[in-house]
Amino acid sequence: MAKIRLVEGVLKANDAIAEANARRLAEHGVRAFNLISSPGAGKTTLLERTLEHYAKPREHPLRIGVIEGDVATTRDAERIETFGVPVVQINTRGGCHLDANMVARALDELPLDALDALFIENVGNLVCPVSYKLGEDAVVAVLSIAEGQDKPAKYPALFRRASVMVLNKLDLVPHCDVDVDALVEETHKVNPQLEIVHASCRTGDGLEAWYAWLDKQLGATGV
Amino acid sequence: MAKIRLVEGVLKANDAIAEANARRLAEHGVRAFNLISSPGAGKTTLLERTLEHYAKPREHPLRIGVIEGDVATTRDAERIETFGVPVVQINTRGGCHLDANMVARALDELPLDALDALFIENVGNLVCPVSYKLGEDAVVAVLSIAEGQDKPAKYPALFRRASVMVLNKLDLVPHCDVDVDALVEETHKVNPQLEIVHASCRTGDGLEAWYAWLDKQLGATGV
Repeated sequence: MAKIRLVEGVLKANDAIAEANARRLAEHGVRAFNLISSPGAGKTTLLERTLEHYAKPREHPLRIGVIEGDVATTRDAERIETFGVPVVQINTRGGCHLDANMVARALDELPLDALDALFIENVGNLVCPVSYKLGEDAVVAVLSIAEGQDKPAKYPALFRRASVMVLNKLDLVPHCDVDVDALVEETHKVNPQLEIVHASCRTGDGLEAWYAWLDKQLGATGV
Repeated sequence: MAKIRLVEGVLKANDAIAEANARRLAEHGVRAFNLISSPGAGKTTLLERTLEHYAKPREHPLRIGVIEGDVATTRDAERIETFGVPVVQINTRGGCHLDANMVARALDELPLDALDALFIENVGNLVCPVSYKLGEDAVVAVLSIAEGQDKPAKYPALFRRASVMVLNKLDLVPHCDVDVDALVEETHKVNPQLEIVHASCRTGDGLEAWYAWLDKQLGATGV
């Protein structure tokens, strides 16, 4: 019972900092997205494709910043840096999730006035990051089809909290024992409102629906 | 600082229970294996192949029990039950790892005198389960090649603690941008002693090396 109270206290303190982060981001007109998935589901590749897409000439260019959360190494931040966007690495030193305080310190390092959108790539973990609000406008779930069709039922918390799911690596479907229709049906049992983007971040196939979803989210800031 | 002390206290209490589990298993002549991986890396399929293998007629039949850890659902336990072996489901109700106390209670439900080997399938999570000893003789890491070659470097703790790694889904290599040699090299940088089994649990290819590793481990009990 004392343990449960302690955990609740930690989450309550986290939520207060997350609300402050959200206010700060809103004041600067930045929409923030918290990307959560298993290790290796394709969060960084999704960001790479997204940065390529929004780097193309547009009437209203979108200015993107990135926070990279990792247990160890700075590899994902190095991949993102090559796109010339502001990126801050949070190294959790073994920790299994980002929390709002880590993100608050990362926001200090970002040129918020020069950003429209902030992508926060969480630690690869389908469980723990879900409990920690960071101040985001939306949670983005990324699921690799190679993980199998039972993951939304077996790890429901993320899929309940997310606004959109990018169902990734669909180019592998012919080589896996997986039923995509059954996966979609089970996912909608967990969360009937969850939008699902069918995609392969490696080939780029299907990502138009992701960009359309993002554009709709970012419309609120007049981009 | 108080938070760090608290976490250390929790782990210390866990380790004491893990030692009691280990003593209890040893008294009954049961060797225990703690299987850890990301969600969907193939732990349950590895167990299915293993149960099939040891169900074949042998001079010294191996009596296997299974503990299934899941955040939600009893699906993996149902898959294992069809093989007619004793299986106990631990549902963590959202918790991100098994701990020694959960396993202690599961041991109460198992016919330890009638077992030679116990496989404990942990919650799918590459981070948290690594910190919690359960009383196992060895940690088995399972890594799906579809997760990408950077996982041992990015999530080193598991690969440091494991005695063997089953590198799974190698049938997908021709369809993924992945360099298996580079993965092996990076893994051995993290842990030069780690034995690596190259396999596809779906097709069964390569699992002879896994059975050989298991047979060596189980030799100690005279099986």
